[in-house]
Amino acid sequence: MYIYHVPELSLKGAMVVLNAAIAKAEEMGVPQCIVIVDRSGNLLAFARMDGARFLSQYSATQKAVTAASLKESTGDMPYSLGMGLAAATGGRFANLEGGMPIIINGAVVGGIGVGSGNGEEDIIVAKAGIAALESAMAQTLPLP
Amino acid sequence: MYIYHVPELSLKGAMVVLNAAIAKAEEMGVPQCIVIVDRSGNLLAFARMDGARFLSQYSATQKAVTAASLKESTGDMPYSLGMGLAAATGGRFANLEGGMPIIINGAVVGGIGVGSGNGEEDIIVAKAGIAALESAMAQTLPLP
Amino acid sequence: MYIYHVPELSLKGAMVVLNAAIAKAEEMGVPQCIVIVDRSGNLLAFARMDGARFLSQYSATQKAVTAASLKESTGDMPYSLGMGLAAATGGRFANLEGGMPIIINGAVVGGIGVGSGNGEEDIIVAKAGIAALESAMAQTLPLP
Amino acid sequence: MYIYHVPELSLKGAMVVLNAAIAKAEEMGVPQCIVIVDRSGNLLAFARMDGARFLSQYSATQKAVTAASLKESTGDMPYSLGMGLAAATGGRFANLEGGMPIIINGAVVGGIGVGSGNGEEDIIVAKAGIAALESAMAQTLPLP
Repeated sequence: MYIYHVPELSLKGAMVVLNAAIAKAEEMGVPQCIVIVDRSGNLLAFARMDGARFLSQYSATQKAVTAASLKESTGDMPYSLGMGLAAATGGRFANLEGGMPIIINGAVVGGIGVGSGNGEEDIIVAKAGIAALESAMAQTLPLP
Repeated sequence: MYIYHVPELSLKGAMVVLNAAIAKAEEMGVPQCIVIVDRSGNLLAFARMDGARFLSQYSATQKAVTAASLKESTGDMPYSLGMGLAAATGGRFANLEGGMPIIINGAVVGGIGVGSGNGEEDIIVAKAGIAALESAMAQTLPLP
Repeated sequence: MYIYHVPELSLKGAMVVLNAAIAKAEEMGVPQCIVIVDRSGNLLAFARMDGARFLSQYSATQKAVTAASLKESTGDMPYSLGMGLAAATGGRFANLEGGMPIIINGAVVGGIGVGSGNGEEDIIVAKAGIAALESAMAQTLPLP
Repeated sequence: MYIYHVPELSLKGAMVVLNAAIAKAEEMGVPQCIVIVDRSGNLLAFARMDGARFLSQYSATQKAVTAASLKESTGDMPYSLGMGLAAATGGRFANLEGGMPIIINGAVVGGIGVGSGNGEEDIIVAKAGIAALESAMAQTLPLP
Protein backbone atom coordinates (compact mmCIF):
# COMPACT_ATOMS: atom_id res chain seq x y z
CA MET A 1 0.00 0.00 0.00
CA TYR A 2 1.86 3.05 -1.21
CA ILE A 3 -0.73 5.60 -0.15
CA TYR A 4 -3.56 5.61 2.30
CA HIS A 5 -6.46 7.90 2.94
CA VAL A 6 -6.87 10.06 5.97
CA PRO A 7 -9.71 12.25 7.21
CA GLU A 8 -8.67 15.90 7.04
CA LEU A 9 -10.32 18.69 9.03
CA SER A 10 -11.77 21.33 6.71
CA LEU A 11 -11.82 25.05 7.42
CA LYS A 12 -15.56 24.70 7.83
CA GLY A 13 -15.02 22.09 10.53
CA ALA A 14 -12.32 24.16 12.18
CA MET A 15 -14.65 27.17 12.28
CA VAL A 16 -17.29 25.10 14.11
CA VAL A 17 -14.68 24.31 16.75
CA LEU A 18 -13.41 27.90 16.88
CA ASN A 19 -16.80 29.57 17.12
CA ALA A 20 -18.05 27.21 19.81
CA ALA A 21 -14.88 27.76 21.81
CA ILE A 22 -15.29 31.54 21.51
CA ALA A 23 -18.92 31.26 22.62
CA LYS A 24 -17.95 29.22 25.69
CA ALA A 25 -15.18 31.64 26.64
CA GLU A 26 -17.57 34.58 26.27
CA GLU A 27 -20.08 32.81 28.46
CA MET A 28 -17.34 32.29 31.07
CA GLY A 29 -16.19 35.90 30.78
CA VAL A 30 -12.60 34.81 30.14
CA PRO A 31 -11.00 36.22 26.97
CA GLN A 32 -8.91 33.57 25.25
CA CYS A 33 -6.57 32.88 22.36
CA ILE A 34 -7.94 29.88 20.48
CA VAL A 35 -6.02 27.97 17.83
CA ILE A 36 -7.06 25.12 15.55
CA VAL A 37 -4.39 23.17 13.68
CA ASP A 38 -4.77 20.29 11.28
CA ARG A 39 -3.42 16.77 11.82
CA SER A 40 -0.04 17.91 10.48
CA GLY A 41 0.30 20.83 12.88
CA ASN A 42 -0.36 23.54 10.32
CA LEU A 43 -2.53 26.47 11.41
CA LEU A 44 -6.16 26.26 10.27
CA ALA A 45 -7.99 28.90 12.30
CA PHE A 46 -7.19 31.36 15.06
CA ALA A 47 -8.93 34.00 17.13
CA ARG A 48 -7.68 36.27 19.91
CA MET A 49 -10.58 37.60 21.92
CA ASP A 50 -10.60 41.22 23.10
CA GLY A 51 -8.52 41.50 26.24
CA ALA A 52 -6.74 38.14 25.92
CA ARG A 53 -3.04 38.12 26.80
CA PHE A 54 -1.08 38.67 23.62
CA LEU A 55 1.71 36.21 24.46
CA SER A 56 -0.91 33.45 24.49
CA GLN A 57 -1.00 33.67 20.69
CA TYR A 58 2.26 31.71 20.81
CA SER A 59 1.60 29.29 23.68
CA ALA A 60 -1.93 28.42 22.52
CA THR A 61 -0.53 27.61 19.09
CA GLN A 62 2.05 25.23 20.53
CA LYS A 63 -0.60 23.56 22.70
CA ALA A 64 -2.67 22.83 19.59
CA VAL A 65 0.36 21.59 17.67
CA THR A 66 1.45 19.39 20.57
CA ALA A 67 -2.01 17.85 21.00
CA ALA A 68 -2.20 17.01 17.29
CA SER A 69 1.23 15.39 17.43
CA LEU A 70 0.77 13.53 20.75
CA LYS A 71 -2.80 12.53 19.88
CA GLU A 72 -3.48 13.24 23.56
CA SER A 73 -4.31 16.19 25.75
CA THR A 74 -1.34 18.34 26.70
CA GLY A 75 0.15 19.11 30.09
CA ASP A 76 0.20 15.65 31.65
CA MET A 77 3.84 14.86 31.09
CA PRO A 78 6.45 14.85 33.86
CA TYR A 79 8.06 18.29 33.96
CA SER A 80 11.58 17.25 33.02
CA LEU A 81 10.44 15.20 30.03
CA GLY A 82 8.20 18.06 28.88
CA MET A 83 11.02 20.58 29.03
CA GLY A 84 13.37 18.18 27.29
CA LEU A 85 10.90 17.81 24.44
CA ALA A 86 10.33 21.58 24.33
CA ALA A 87 14.06 22.14 23.98
CA ALA A 88 14.55 19.37 21.41
CA THR A 89 11.71 20.66 19.20
CA GLY A 90 12.70 24.30 19.19
CA GLY A 91 9.85 25.21 21.50
CA ARG A 92 7.19 23.47 19.40
CA PHE A 93 6.32 20.94 22.10
CA ALA A 94 4.29 22.52 24.90
CA ASN A 95 3.71 20.61 28.12
CA LEU A 96 0.95 23.01 29.20
CA GLU A 97 -2.72 22.41 29.93
CA GLY A 98 -5.18 23.60 27.29
CA GLY A 99 -4.36 21.50 24.23
CA MET A 100 -6.57 18.66 23.03
CA PRO A 101 -6.61 16.46 19.94
CA ILE A 102 -9.67 16.71 17.72
CA ILE A 103 -10.75 13.11 17.19
CA ILE A 104 -13.44 12.07 14.72
CA ASN A 105 -14.46 8.42 14.47
CA GLY A 106 -11.31 7.43 16.28
CA ALA A 107 -8.96 9.37 14.02
CA VAL A 108 -7.03 12.46 15.07
CA VAL A 109 -7.90 15.17 12.54
CA GLY A 110 -6.31 18.12 14.33
CA GLY A 111 -5.74 19.89 17.60
CA ILE A 112 -7.16 22.78 19.54
CA GLY A 113 -5.07 24.96 21.86
CA VAL A 114 -6.50 27.51 24.25
CA GLY A 115 -4.54 30.01 26.30
CA SER A 116 -4.93 33.16 28.37
CA GLY A 117 -7.10 31.75 31.13
CA ASN A 118 -5.85 29.38 33.79
CA GLY A 119 -5.34 25.75 32.80
CA GLU A 120 -8.76 24.67 33.95
CA GLU A 121 -10.52 27.41 32.02
CA ASP A 122 -8.45 26.64 28.94
CA ILE A 123 -9.51 22.99 29.04
CA ILE A 124 -13.22 23.82 29.40
CA VAL A 125 -13.05 26.03 26.32
CA ALA A 126 -11.14 23.42 24.31
CA LYS A 127 -13.69 20.75 25.20
CA ALA A 128 -16.59 23.01 24.21
CA GLY A 129 -15.03 23.52 20.80
CA ILE A 130 -14.57 19.82 20.18
CA ALA A 131 -18.04 18.94 21.48
CA ALA A 132 -19.60 21.33 18.98
CA LEU A 133 -17.88 19.58 16.09
CA GLU A 134 -18.92 16.15 17.36
CA SER A 135 -22.47 17.38 17.68
CA ALA A 136 -22.48 18.93 14.21
CA MET A 137 -21.14 15.73 12.70
CA ALA A 138 -23.66 13.54 14.53
CA GLN A 139 -26.43 15.52 12.88
CA THR A 140 -25.04 14.87 9.42
CA LEU A 141 -24.63 11.10 9.79
CA PRO A 142 -27.01 8.91 7.78
CA LEU A 143 -29.75 7.22 9.76
CA PRO A 144 -29.25 3.47 10.25
CA MET B 1 0.43 64.24 26.86
CA TYR B 2 1.43 61.04 28.65
CA ILE B 3 -1.24 58.85 27.10
CA TYR B 4 -3.42 59.20 24.03
CA HIS B 5 -6.41 57.28 22.80
CA VAL B 6 -6.42 55.08 19.74
CA PRO B 7 -9.03 52.90 18.04
CA GLU B 8 -8.39 49.19 18.43
CA LEU B 9 -9.84 46.56 16.11
CA SER B 10 -12.07 44.11 18.01
CA LEU B 11 -12.26 40.40 17.26
CA LYS B 12 -15.77 41.05 15.99
CA GLY B 13 -14.37 43.57 13.52
CA ALA B 14 -11.57 41.24 12.52
CA MET B 15 -14.07 38.44 11.86
CA VAL B 16 -16.04 40.70 9.51
CA VAL B 17 -12.84 41.21 7.53
CA LEU B 18 -11.89 37.53 7.67
CA ASN B 19 -15.28 36.16 6.65
CA ALA B 20 -15.66 38.58 3.75
CA ALA B 21 -12.18 37.71 2.52
CA ILE B 22 -12.98 34.00 2.70
CA ALA B 23 -16.21 34.57 0.78
CA LYS B 24 -14.40 36.47 -1.96
CA ALA B 25 -11.71 33.81 -2.27
CA GLU B 26 -14.39 31.08 -2.48
CA GLU B 27 -16.16 33.04 -5.20
CA MET B 28 -12.86 33.26 -7.09
CA GLY B 29 -12.12 29.57 -6.58
CA VAL B 30 -8.71 30.37 -5.11
CA PRO B 31 -7.99 28.88 -1.66
CA GLN B 32 -6.12 31.38 0.53
CA CYS B 33 -4.47 31.90 3.88
CA ILE B 34 -5.95 35.03 5.41
CA VAL B 35 -4.53 36.80 8.45
CA ILE B 36 -5.77 39.77 10.46
CA VAL B 37 -3.42 41.50 12.91
CA ASP B 38 -4.04 44.45 15.19
CA ARG B 39 -2.33 47.84 14.85
CA SER B 40 0.66 46.55 16.83
CA GLY B 41 1.19 43.42 14.76
CA ASN B 42 -0.31 40.87 17.13
CA LEU B 43 -2.44 38.13 15.56
CA LEU B 44 -6.21 38.63 15.81
CA ALA B 45 -7.76 36.15 13.39
CA PHE B 46 -6.60 33.58 10.86
CA ALA B 47 -8.08 31.09 8.41
CA ARG B 48 -6.44 28.67 5.98
CA MET B 49 -8.88 27.57 3.33
CA ASP B 50 -8.97 23.95 2.16
CA GLY B 51 -6.23 23.43 -0.39
CA ALA B 52 -4.29 26.61 0.38
CA ARG B 53 -0.51 26.30 0.41
CA PHE B 54 0.58 25.66 3.97
CA LEU B 55 3.71 27.85 3.84
CA SER B 56 1.43 30.79 3.14
CA GLN B 57 0.43 30.71 6.81
CA TYR B 58 3.80 32.36 7.44
CA SER B 59 4.02 34.73 4.49
CA ALA B 60 0.43 35.93 4.82
CA THR B 61 1.10 36.67 8.50
CA GLN B 62 4.16 38.77 7.69
CA LYS B 63 2.24 40.63 4.95
CA ALA B 64 -0.38 41.59 7.54
CA VAL B 65 2.25 42.62 10.10
CA THR B 66 4.15 44.63 7.50
CA ALA B 67 1.04 46.47 6.32
CA ALA B 68 0.12 47.39 9.89
CA SER B 69 3.63 48.70 10.52
CA LEU B 70 4.09 50.51 7.19
CA LYS B 71 0.55 51.86 7.23
CA GLU B 72 0.64 51.15 3.50
CA SER B 73 0.02 48.25 1.15
CA THR B 74 2.90 45.82 0.88
CA GLY B 75 5.00 44.84 -2.11
CA ASP B 76 5.74 48.24 -3.60
CA MET B 77 9.24 48.64 -2.25
CA PRO B 78 12.39 48.35 -4.42
CA TYR B 79 13.62 44.76 -4.23
CA SER B 80 16.94 45.45 -2.51
CA LEU B 81 15.40 47.63 0.19
CA GLY B 82 12.69 45.07 0.81
CA MET B 83 15.20 42.26 1.20
CA GLY B 84 17.36 44.41 3.46
CA LEU B 85 14.37 45.14 5.71
CA ALA B 86 13.35 41.47 5.73
CA ALA B 87 16.82 40.50 6.92
CA ALA B 88 17.09 43.31 9.48
CA THR B 89 13.74 42.48 11.08
CA GLY B 90 14.26 38.76 11.45
CA GLY B 91 11.93 38.01 8.54
CA ARG B 92 9.07 40.08 9.93
CA PHE B 93 9.06 42.56 7.04
CA ALA B 94 7.52 41.11 3.87
CA ASN B 95 7.88 43.01 0.61
CA LEU B 96 5.19 40.91 -1.07
CA GLU B 97 1.86 41.84 -2.58
CA GLY B 98 -1.21 40.94 -0.55
CA GLY B 99 -0.88 42.99 2.62
CA MET B 100 -3.03 46.04 3.30
CA PRO B 101 -3.55 48.28 6.29
CA ILE B 102 -7.04 48.34 7.78
CA ILE B 103 -7.90 52.02 8.09
CA ILE B 104 -10.97 53.29 9.90
CA ASN B 105 -11.72 57.00 9.98
CA GLY B 106 -8.17 57.72 8.91
CA ALA B 107 -6.54 55.61 11.62
CA VAL B 108 -4.70 52.34 11.01
CA VAL B 109 -6.36 49.77 13.26
CA GLY B 110 -4.66 46.68 11.86
CA GLY B 111 -3.54 44.82 8.79
CA ILE B 112 -4.76 42.03 6.55
CA GLY B 113 -2.42 39.65 4.78
CA VAL B 114 -3.48 37.20 2.09
CA GLY B 115 -1.34 34.50 0.55
CA SER B 116 -1.54 31.36 -1.57
CA GLY B 117 -2.89 32.91 -4.75
CA ASN B 118 -0.87 35.10 -7.06
CA GLY B 119 -0.27 38.69 -5.99
CA GLU B 120 -3.24 40.05 -7.89
CA GLU B 121 -5.62 37.50 -6.40
CA ASP B 122 -4.26 38.13 -2.92
CA ILE B 123 -4.92 41.87 -3.26
CA ILE B 124 -8.51 41.36 -4.45
CA VAL B 125 -9.24 39.20 -1.43
CA ALA B 126 -7.61 41.67 0.98
CA LYS B 127 -9.64 44.53 -0.47
CA ALA B 128 -12.88 42.57 -0.17
CA GLY B 129 -12.19 41.97 3.50
CA ILE B 130 -11.54 45.62 4.23
CA ALA B 131 -14.54 46.78 2.18
CA ALA B 132 -16.83 44.58 4.27
CA LEU B 133 -15.67 46.22 7.49
CA GLU B 134 -16.08 49.69 6.04
CA SER B 135 -19.56 48.78 4.94
CA ALA B 136 -20.48 47.26 8.30
CA MET B 137 -19.20 50.32 10.11
CA ALA B 138 -21.04 52.72 7.82
CA GLN B 139 -24.27 50.99 8.86
CA THR B 140 -23.55 51.55 12.53
CA LEU B 141 -22.87 55.28 12.20
CA PRO B 142 -25.45 57.56 13.77
CA LEU B 143 -27.79 59.23 11.33
CA PRO B 144 -27.04 62.89 10.76
CA MET C 1 -18.69 46.92 18.26
CA TYR C 2 -16.09 46.63 15.49
CA ILE C 3 -13.54 48.94 17.08
CA TYR C 4 -13.05 50.21 20.60
CA HIS C 5 -10.84 52.89 22.03
CA VAL C 6 -7.90 52.25 24.31
CA PRO C 7 -5.34 54.48 26.01
CA GLU C 8 -1.86 54.23 24.50
CA LEU C 9 1.32 55.20 26.35
CA SER C 10 3.15 58.01 24.55
CA LEU C 11 6.93 58.26 24.32
CA LYS C 12 6.66 61.27 26.62
CA GLY C 13 4.90 59.10 29.19
CA ALA C 14 7.42 56.30 28.73
CA MET C 15 10.29 58.74 29.30
CA VAL C 16 8.76 59.84 32.60
CA VAL C 17 8.81 56.21 33.71
CA LEU C 18 12.30 55.60 32.35
CA ASN C 19 13.91 58.69 33.85
CA ALA C 20 12.37 58.13 37.28
CA ALA C 21 13.53 54.51 37.22
CA ILE C 22 17.06 55.59 36.32
CA ALA C 23 17.04 58.17 39.12
CA LYS C 24 15.95 55.57 41.67
CA ALA C 25 18.59 53.09 40.51
CA GLU C 26 21.27 55.80 40.72
CA GLU C 27 20.14 56.66 44.23
CA MET C 28 20.43 52.96 45.15
CA GLY C 29 23.84 52.66 43.51
CA VAL C 30 22.65 49.69 41.42
CA PRO C 31 23.14 50.01 37.64
CA GLN C 32 20.15 48.62 35.77
CA CYS C 33 18.72 47.87 32.34
CA ILE C 34 15.29 49.49 32.16
CA VAL C 35 12.76 48.78 29.43
CA ILE C 36 9.37 50.29 28.70
CA VAL C 37 7.03 48.55 26.24
CA ASP C 38 3.58 49.55 25.08
CA ARG C 39 0.40 47.57 25.83
CA SER C 40 1.09 45.31 22.84
CA GLY C 41 4.66 44.48 23.79
CA ASN C 42 6.48 46.72 21.32
CA LEU C 43 9.55 48.53 22.63
CA LEU C 44 8.99 52.19 23.56
CA ALA C 45 12.06 53.24 25.56
CA PHE C 46 15.21 51.63 26.91
CA ALA C 47 18.28 52.57 28.92
CA ARG C 48 21.26 50.55 30.11
CA MET C 49 23.06 52.28 32.92
CA ASP C 50 26.86 52.30 33.09
CA GLY C 51 28.04 49.04 34.57
CA ALA C 52 24.76 47.14 34.15
CA ARG C 53 25.04 43.53 33.02
CA PHE C 54 24.68 43.46 29.26
CA LEU C 55 22.60 40.26 29.10
CA SER C 56 19.96 42.07 31.14
CA GLN C 57 19.06 44.00 27.99
CA TYR C 58 17.28 40.81 26.94
CA SER C 59 15.79 39.64 30.23
CA ALA C 60 14.57 43.10 31.21
CA THR C 61 12.86 43.37 27.82
CA GLN C 62 11.03 40.09 28.28
CA LYS C 63 10.01 41.07 31.82
CA ALA C 64 8.38 44.20 30.41
CA VAL C 65 6.70 42.27 27.60
CA THR C 66 5.45 39.61 30.01
CA ALA C 67 4.03 42.17 32.44
CA ALA C 68 2.17 43.94 29.62
CA SER C 69 0.71 40.62 28.42
CA LEU C 70 -0.12 39.17 31.87
CA LYS C 71 -1.42 42.51 33.16
CA GLU C 72 0.30 41.49 36.39
CA SER C 73 3.72 41.66 37.97
CA THR C 74 6.13 38.99 36.79
CA GLY C 75 7.89 36.26 38.71
CA ASP C 76 5.03 34.92 40.82
CA MET C 77 4.24 31.86 38.71
CA PRO C 78 5.11 28.30 39.78
CA TYR C 79 8.50 27.42 38.32
CA SER C 80 7.35 24.62 36.02
CA LEU C 81 4.52 26.67 34.51
CA GLY C 82 6.83 29.61 33.99
CA MET C 83 9.40 27.49 32.20
CA GLY C 84 6.70 25.87 30.09
CA LEU C 85 5.41 29.27 29.02
CA ALA C 86 8.94 30.52 28.32
CA ALA C 87 9.53 27.56 26.02
CA ALA C 88 6.13 27.78 24.31
CA THR C 89 6.50 31.50 23.55
CA GLY C 90 9.99 31.35 22.08
CA GLY C 91 11.50 32.88 25.21
CA ARG C 92 9.14 35.85 25.25
CA PHE C 93 7.54 34.92 28.57
CA ALA C 94 9.82 35.66 31.53
CA ASN C 95 8.87 34.33 34.97
CA LEU C 96 11.38 36.62 36.68
CA GLU C 97 10.91 39.37 39.22
CA GLY C 98 11.23 42.93 37.96
CA GLY C 99 8.40 43.30 35.47
CA MET C 100 5.28 45.32 36.23
CA PRO C 101 2.30 46.45 34.18
CA ILE C 102 1.85 50.21 33.77
CA ILE C 103 -1.77 50.83 34.69
CA ILE C 104 -3.47 54.19 34.18
CA ASN C 105 -7.07 54.66 35.30
CA GLY C 106 -7.47 50.91 35.50
CA ALA C 107 -6.20 50.19 31.99
CA VAL C 108 -2.90 48.50 31.20
CA VAL C 109 -1.02 50.88 28.88
CA GLY C 110 2.33 49.09 28.90
CA GLY C 111 4.95 47.34 30.96
CA ILE C 112 8.25 48.13 32.63
CA GLY C 113 11.02 45.57 33.00
CA VAL C 114 14.12 46.06 35.13
CA GLY C 115 17.12 43.79 35.26
CA SER C 116 20.71 43.64 36.45
CA GLY C 117 20.10 44.01 40.17
CA ASN C 118 18.62 41.31 42.34
CA GLY C 119 14.87 40.76 42.13
CA GLU C 120 14.08 43.01 45.06
CA GLU C 121 16.14 45.88 43.67
CA ASP C 122 14.57 45.43 40.24
CA ILE C 123 11.08 45.72 41.72
CA ILE C 124 11.90 48.89 43.67
CA VAL C 125 13.16 50.55 40.48
CA ALA C 126 10.12 49.44 38.47
CA LYS C 127 7.77 50.80 41.12
CA ALA C 128 9.58 54.13 41.19
CA GLY C 129 9.16 54.48 37.44
CA ILE C 130 5.45 53.78 37.57
CA ALA C 131 4.90 56.05 40.58
CA ALA C 132 6.45 58.96 38.70
CA LEU C 133 3.99 58.56 35.82
CA GLU C 134 1.05 58.33 38.19
CA SER C 135 2.24 61.46 39.92
CA ALA C 136 2.79 63.34 36.65
CA MET C 137 -0.66 62.35 35.44
CA ALA C 138 -2.32 63.35 38.69
CA GLN C 139 -0.97 66.85 38.13
CA THR C 140 -2.53 67.07 34.70
CA LEU C 141 -6.02 66.02 35.80
CA PRO C 142 -8.67 68.70 35.76
CA LEU C 143 -9.54 70.12 39.17
CA PRO C 144 -12.87 68.90 40.56
CA MET D 1 50.47 44.83 26.44
CA TYR D 2 47.85 42.50 27.82
CA ILE D 3 45.10 45.07 28.19
CA TYR D 4 44.43 48.45 26.68
CA HIS D 5 42.06 51.25 27.49
CA VAL D 6 39.17 52.30 25.33
CA PRO D 7 36.74 55.19 25.54
CA GLU D 8 33.27 53.89 26.39
CA LEU D 9 30.05 55.80 25.71
CA SER D 10 28.15 56.40 28.95
CA LEU D 11 24.37 56.35 29.26
CA LYS D 12 24.61 60.11 29.82
CA GLY D 13 26.40 60.48 26.48
CA ALA D 14 23.93 58.17 24.76
CA MET D 15 21.02 60.22 26.09
CA VAL D 16 22.51 63.37 24.58
CA VAL D 17 22.55 61.61 21.21
CA LEU D 18 19.07 60.17 21.70
CA ASN D 19 17.39 63.38 22.83
CA ALA D 20 18.93 65.46 20.05
CA ALA D 21 17.85 62.88 17.49
CA ILE D 22 14.31 62.93 18.86
CA ALA D 23 14.28 66.74 18.76
CA LYS D 24 15.40 66.75 15.12
CA ALA D 25 12.81 64.16 14.12
CA GLU D 26 10.10 66.15 15.88
CA GLU D 27 11.21 69.28 14.06
CA MET D 28 10.99 67.36 10.77
CA GLY D 29 7.58 65.92 11.66
CA VAL D 30 8.81 62.38 11.01
CA PRO D 31 8.31 59.91 13.89
CA GLN D 32 11.33 57.61 14.22
CA CYS D 33 12.75 54.66 16.07
CA ILE D 34 16.16 55.70 17.40
CA VAL D 35 18.71 53.30 18.83
CA ILE D 36 22.08 53.90 20.46
CA VAL D 37 24.46 50.98 20.97
CA ASP D 38 27.89 50.92 22.54
CA ARG D 39 31.13 50.01 20.76
CA SER D 40 30.38 46.32 21.37
CA GLY D 41 26.92 46.43 19.83
CA ASN D 42 25.00 46.20 23.07
CA LEU D 43 21.90 48.37 23.43
CA LEU D 44 22.41 51.57 25.42
CA ALA D 45 19.34 53.68 24.72
CA PHE D 46 16.21 53.45 22.60
CA ALA D 47 13.12 55.50 21.84
CA ARG D 48 10.16 54.86 19.55
CA MET D 49 8.34 58.09 18.80
CA ASP D 50 4.53 58.16 18.69
CA GLY D 51 3.42 56.95 15.28
CA ALA D 52 6.72 55.40 14.21
CA ARG D 53 6.51 52.06 12.40
CA PHE D 54 6.83 49.30 14.95
CA LEU D 55 8.96 47.02 12.76
CA SER D 56 11.61 49.74 12.73
CA GLN D 57 12.45 48.81 16.33
CA TYR D 58 14.28 45.85 14.79
CA SER D 59 15.82 47.40 11.69
CA ALA D 60 16.99 50.56 13.50
CA THR D 61 18.71 48.37 16.08
CA GLN D 62 20.58 46.43 13.42
CA LYS D 63 21.61 49.68 11.68
CA ALA D 64 23.17 50.89 14.94
CA VAL D 65 24.88 47.56 15.57
CA THR D 66 26.19 47.43 12.01
CA ALA D 67 27.58 50.98 12.15
CA ALA D 68 29.39 50.26 15.42
CA SER D 69 30.89 47.10 13.93
CA LEU D 70 31.78 48.54 10.52
CA LYS D 71 33.00 51.82 12.02
CA GLU D 72 31.33 53.38 8.99
CA SER D 73 27.90 54.56 7.95
CA THR D 74 25.55 51.80 6.82
CA GLY D 75 23.89 51.22 3.48
CA ASP D 76 26.80 51.82 1.12
CA MET D 77 27.69 48.22 0.45
CA PRO D 78 26.95 46.44 -2.85
CA TYR D 79 23.59 44.67 -2.46
CA SER D 80 24.83 41.10 -2.82
CA LEU D 81 27.62 41.57 -0.28
CA GLY D 82 25.21 43.20 2.14
CA MET D 83 22.72 40.35 1.89
CA GLY D 84 25.48 37.80 2.24
CA LEU D 85 26.63 39.47 5.44
CA ALA D 86 23.03 39.72 6.70
CA ALA D 87 22.59 35.99 6.15
CA ALA D 88 25.93 35.05 7.68
CA THR D 89 25.32 37.11 10.83
CA GLY D 90 21.82 35.88 11.54
CA GLY D 91 20.32 39.19 10.41
CA ARG D 92 22.58 41.32 12.61
CA PHE D 93 24.27 43.04 9.68
CA ALA D 94 21.99 45.62 8.05
CA ASN D 95 22.96 47.17 4.73
CA LEU D 96 20.38 49.93 5.11
CA GLU D 97 20.76 53.69 5.30
CA GLY D 98 20.34 55.28 8.69
CA GLY D 99 23.20 53.83 10.77
CA MET D 100 26.27 55.85 11.73
CA PRO D 101 29.22 55.24 14.02
CA ILE D 102 29.60 57.58 16.97
CA ILE D 103 33.22 58.73 16.80
CA ILE D 104 34.89 60.76 19.54
CA ASN D 105 38.48 61.93 19.11
CA GLY D 106 38.94 59.44 16.31
CA ALA D 107 37.65 56.44 18.27
CA VAL D 108 34.39 54.66 17.60
CA VAL D 109 32.47 54.64 20.89
CA GLY D 110 29.15 53.37 19.57
CA GLY D 111 26.55 53.55 16.85
CA ILE D 112 23.25 55.21 16.18
CA GLY D 113 20.51 53.65 14.07
CA VAL D 114 17.41 55.47 12.89
CA GLY D 115 14.44 53.94 11.13
CA SER D 116 10.85 54.64 10.14
CA GLY D 117 11.48 57.56 7.81
CA ASN D 118 13.02 57.21 4.38
CA GLY D 119 16.78 56.72 4.20
CA GLU D 120 17.52 60.40 3.77
CA GLU D 121 15.40 61.38 6.77
CA ASP D 122 16.97 58.65 8.87
CA ILE D 123 20.46 59.96 8.10
CA ILE D 124 19.59 63.56 8.99
CA VAL D 125 18.29 62.43 12.37
CA ALA D 126 21.35 60.25 13.03
CA LYS D 127 23.68 63.13 12.19
CA ALA D 128 21.80 65.51 14.49
CA GLY D 129 22.23 63.06 17.35
CA ILE D 130 25.95 62.73 16.82
CA ALA D 131 26.44 66.46 16.34
CA ALA D 132 24.84 67.15 19.70
CA LEU D 133 27.30 64.87 21.47
CA GLU D 134 30.25 66.44 19.66
CA SER D 135 28.98 69.85 20.64
CA ALA D 136 28.43 68.85 24.26
CA MET D 137 31.93 67.40 24.44
CA ALA D 138 33.53 70.46 22.86
CA GLN D 139 32.06 72.55 25.65
CA THR D 140 33.67 70.39 28.30
CA LEU D 141 37.17 70.38 26.80
CA PRO D 142 39.80 72.44 28.63
CA LEU D 143 40.80 75.65 26.84
CA PRO D 144 44.25 75.54 25.27
